[in-house]
Formats: sequence, C-alpha cells, structure tokens
Amino acid sequence: MADKSGSYKRDTNYIQTRITRDGEDGYPVEANRYRLAAARACPWANRALIARRLYGLDDVISVAMAGPTHDERSWTFDLDPGGVDPVLGIHFLRDAYTKRFPNYERGITVPAIVDERTGEVVTNDFNQMTLDFGTEWKEFHRAGAPDLYPEAQREEMDELMEFVFHTVNNGVYKCGFATSQEAYDKAYDELWSALDQLEKRLETRRYLMGPSISEADVRLYPTLVRFDAVYHGHFKCNRQKLDELPNLWGYARELFQTPGFGDTNDFVQIKEHYYIVHTDVNPTGIVPKGPALNGWLTPHGRDHLEANTWGDGGTPPPPPLAAEVPDPAHTPLRVEAR
Amino acid sequence: MADKSGSYKRDTNYIQTRITRDGEDGYPVEANRYRLAAARACPWANRALIARRLYGLDDVISVAMAGPTHDERSWTFDLDPGGVDPVLGIHFLRDAYTKRFPNYERGITVPAIVDERTGEVVTNDFNQMTLDFGTEWKEFHRAGAPDLYPEAQREEMDELMEFVFHTVNNGVYKCGFATSQEAYDKAYDELWSALDQLEKRLETRRYLMGPSISEADVRLYPTLVRFDAVYHGHFKCNRQKLDELPNLWGYARELFQTPGFGDTNDFVQIKEHYYIVHTDVNPTGIVPKGPALNGWLTPHGRDHLEANTWGDGGTPPPPPLAAEVPDPAHTPLRVEAR
Repeated sequence: MADKSGSYKRDTNYIQTRITRDGEDGYPVEANRYRLAAARACPWANRALIARRLYGLDDVISVAMAGPTHDERSWTFDLDPGGVDPVLGIHFLRDAYTKRFPNYERGITVPAIVDERTGEVVTNDFNQMTLDFGTEWKEFHRAGAPDLYPEAQREEMDELMEFVFHTVNNGVYKCGFATSQEAYDKAYDELWSALDQLEKRLETRRYLMGPSISEADVRLYPTLVRFDAVYHGHFKCNRQKLDELPNLWGYARELFQTPGFGDTNDFVQIKEHYYIVHTDVNPTGIVPKGPALNGWLTPHGRDHLEANTWGDGGTPPPPPLAAEVPDPAHTPLRVEAR
Repeated sequence: MADKSGSYKRDTNYIQTRITRDGEDGYPVEANRYRLAAARACPWANRALIARRLYGLDDVISVAMAGPTHDERSWTFDLDPGGVDPVLGIHFLRDAYTKRFPNYERGITVPAIVDERTGEVVTNDFNQMTLDFGTEWKEFHRAGAPDLYPEAQREEMDELMEFVFHTVNNGVYKCGFATSQEAYDKAYDELWSALDQLEKRLETRRYLMGPSISEADVRLYPTLVRFDAVYHGHFKCNRQKLDELPNLWGYARELFQTPGFGDTNDFVQIKEHYYIVHTDVNPTGIVPKGPALNGWLTPHGRDHLEANTWGDGGTPPPPPLAAEVPDPAHTPLRVEAR
C-alpha cells in the first residue's frame, strides 16, 4: 500500500453504483431493502452510521455490524451468534462482494450497502453514500432531520471536506502507514498544519460550517474521536493529543455528547481493530489500556458560540435502536435505547 | 527477554566490581583514570551522567558518549570522528567488556566504567555506581556538592527506590516489551498505580524525599523526561501523558530546568534509540516527530513547596563542559558551557 517513496496510497476506486430515487442504476430507494454493512471500529463506516442516525434512516436501512478484528480476508460478522449475519447469512463480508462481482479484487471495505433481496453488494463508495442518505433518501427522513448538505454551502463544504480528507481523515493513515521517514515527516507536517487551521476555524464557529451541524462535521468527527485512542500513538500523530487543542477538543466533545455521534462509538472495538489488525505496525498485537476516557464527558465549553445545531425546524435524533446501543463497558457515554 | 507468560524480565546481574577508596577490588578511586561509557538515549546512563554532574565529578571522570542507535551488537561510538572513542580507541563498547571478560555473554550495557589504563570494563552496575559516586568519590566532589544519599534517610530511600525501579523505571519496559496482553495489562496497572502514589507524594514534597534533591530524584527523573517522548506511545504507557499529572509534571519540569538534569538530555537521541533499535516493537523504524517540547520550559509552579534544593551549604553545579553540551537542535533548553 506504500509506493516507492514510502508514502501510503489509499485505493479510492469504489463501487460507484448508487441507490437513487429514480433507480437509474437498478437500485431505487426503498424501505427495508438495504443493509448497511459497518463496523464500529472503522472511521469511514462511522460516517455512515452517524448520517443514518441523524437523518432517522435507522428505521428503513438495517445494519450488519462486523467485528473489530479480522485477517487479510477483511471484515467478518464474528460478533453475531454463530459468526453469521442473521439477515445476509454470511460470515465474510467478502461474500457479498463476490456474489455480485465474482472476481472482485479491490479491498473489501466498510461501509458497504448490500441488497437484502440478492445478498449482493450495491456500493462501498462512502463519500457518495452519506450524500445520498441526505438527498436521495429524503422521503424517508424523520421529522426534524437536519439538512447536512445545504445547497448554498456546497462549494465551500466540498473544498473543506476535500482538504480534510487528504490531510486529516486519510492524513493519519499516511502518517501511520508510511514506510519511509521522509513520507512520514511530510504527512505529519500536513496533518498538523491542517489541524492548526481547523483549530483556528473552530475558534469562532460552533461547527465547521457555522452554527449548524453539517456533512463536514460528520466527516471530521470520526477521525477526532479516534485520535487519542489510536492515531496519536499507533500512527505516530503525536505532536499533541487532541485534548491539548482547546477548540478541536471542545468541538469533538460537544459532538460526542450529541445524539447520533458518541452513541455510535465503541472505544474498545476501535483500539482492537487498529492494534490487532495492523501487525506490520504493532507486531505483538497488544492493545493499550489507555487513554483515560473520562474527559469525553466533561463540559465542552462551546456555549459562547452561536448554535442552531439542527438548523431551522431541526431536532436531535431519538436514541438508537436497542440492538445498536454500544456496549456500555466500551464507552464512557451512557446511551439510552429507543 | 520475555518469559513464558509474556512478561519482560530484565537481567539484573551486573559486573559487581567496585571502584572504592580502599581499592579492595583492585580499582581505587583516582582522578583521570576512569571513563564513563554512557549514551544520552539511555535512562540508566542518564542517572550516572546526572550524579556525576551534581557531585562535580565531570572534572575527574571523563565520558565516552555512545550514539543513540545500534544493532544487536549493542552500543557504539559512532558519534565520534571515525566512529572511534578518542580515549578508548574502540568502536564497539563490547570491546571493553571482552577485553576484561573474553567470553562475556550478558548484555553490553551503559552506563559502564572503563579503566583508561587497560581499556577494560570495571563495572556496569548502575545502582551501585551512583551510590559510589556519592560516597567513595567524596574527596573529589566539588565545593557545594549535595549529599544525595543522607544516612538518616537511607532506609526510606532504599525502599522508595526499589519500588520505583520495579514499577516505573523498569515498569515502562515491562509494558513495552510484554509479549502477552495479560503481562502488559499487569505492568500497566502497576505503573499507573505507582505514578498515582508518586503524584500524591509530590503534592506536599518539593522532591521525593522532601525539600532537597536526593538519589531518589536522580533515579526517577530519567524515566519522567522520556515519558511523553517514548514510553507513552512506543511502550503503550498511555493512560495519560506525564504533562497531565500536575505534580509529577511540575516536579519533572523543575528538575529539567535545574543544572545537572535537563542539560544531560537530548530528545532526538532518546527517540531515535527506542524507535530505531526496537524493531520488534516498531518494525518500520520510523521516529515520531512529536511530542512538542515547549512545555518543558514553562514555569513549574512548585515554589509554594519548601525547598532547600542542594541541602545546607549546597550549591548548584556549574554548567557542563563545552564538549558535553547537548546539541541545541535536540532540546528546548539553552545550555551554556563551562
């Protein structure tokens, strides 16, 4: 995955089939037809889980939750009874990919959406997926669902999200998977330059785009919530811990405490995934006991900044479905179930 | 180095020859006869470098400074011109060991004292070494040298230092070199229990034994100064960073800013040693750019605690010899030379 210079290159070619209102790719939006394959460990899947909750799509799109660890064959449903997802009837997520593409050779990634009728993967394009949740699935949104991708802000958001993807979301991986000191040093400098810019941006803005939560927050948060637990040590992103950056730390804490964000997270699964799966970075597979997590519940100190969290007419999402409440031993958050 | 349970076991059998006033082991104290083989990276050598400075023995015991990295053949003088120590005339410290013990099979460790007349190692017993600097070498102490091991406190100090050795000094290695989750978890719990106790102890004491610096401080400090730079991430000692423990962090900062302590340290060499030498923990050999070091120079906030830093009649040591000033690019401390 590293090139000749030792830089990590993420394969960003995903299955581009879309689920749309007009069904032009053969997959029309439809309640109770699609299953979102996710994993609590994965930051890209975390985006999809958050967006699904915020829009209230958890009643119409079900979830198959893969376990935190796996071998080179990728994600499995080993948390389910018998190690088999009860709806798709498979152990290896790979089977949903090869059912549609028998010779599929790219990475078996989450999030992926599977058509429950056929057991075939529809898409694993995580960027398009959350945008489509917001637009194509609008008729199934809950009452009070936010508009996370407002037309008037899209140009600025797209630029910001692109920047955050390269320097932060994927930037931490570039640090951790670099195989040369030069490639690491470059990724580290880009990451911290970006975090310094975001720290400044959040000094005067409650959320990345202003007083309301947006898709940009949904995309930045999964990296921040994993930062001190894995990226700081395991990926050597260690200029500071997140909790040393007052605005980003207050921002991340507020989101963590906001319904739909922290209630999707499981710190044990996050740590187990990175420290056990990446044997090239952590050969012993030992999972750190730290960091202490109690800080996540402290007051976020952002109340002096203007907030219209859910936008005009918007409301917070209800608690998660009972089957989707994170293991209370794995998070400091006390999550109620619907 | 790990036993069947995955626990790290340090070989604590050292060469027990002593340099004494009466010379009963064949090595009498004598100015300009002995050379201290050290390395700025190594915490055990750091003790010896600090004690030598505090007692003012830098004028009578010279230093051979090994570089930070090495292969399985152990420390070398690769920082010296031609890679050879100018006094001992050797590249491998091992050669001083085998010159005296041709079949030496234990670890080649620093600190070690070498007899310049013969080029043979005398001792590498780091516990005894600093005590002997204080007692056997007394006639060579500078005016104003502290008594770091006062008779009246020895019983309490011995117990405290033994506790700190097992849980903290060596405790961080037990975390980092554990090869089973169980062994790591146990070492982590012992380490943090000990740090919590020390944090409490330092709430009311300026130094570990009270208002004056002692041997106990010389032994704890080298672990603390390395904590955030290597032990937190590389050894997974990550409940918190040192700078999150107010009393220990203030205490470590005050010592860092005290002549004889921080002026022995080189953060780049510390990081290079651990991250490059331990390929079993960090296979890529990539050295993190963090953590930020500017905190080490901030006010320590310990002035409300009674201090008699050097003891009655004691004074701080003069600046280090010009040849021993750490590379200013490797430490935030601005160190003047004698």
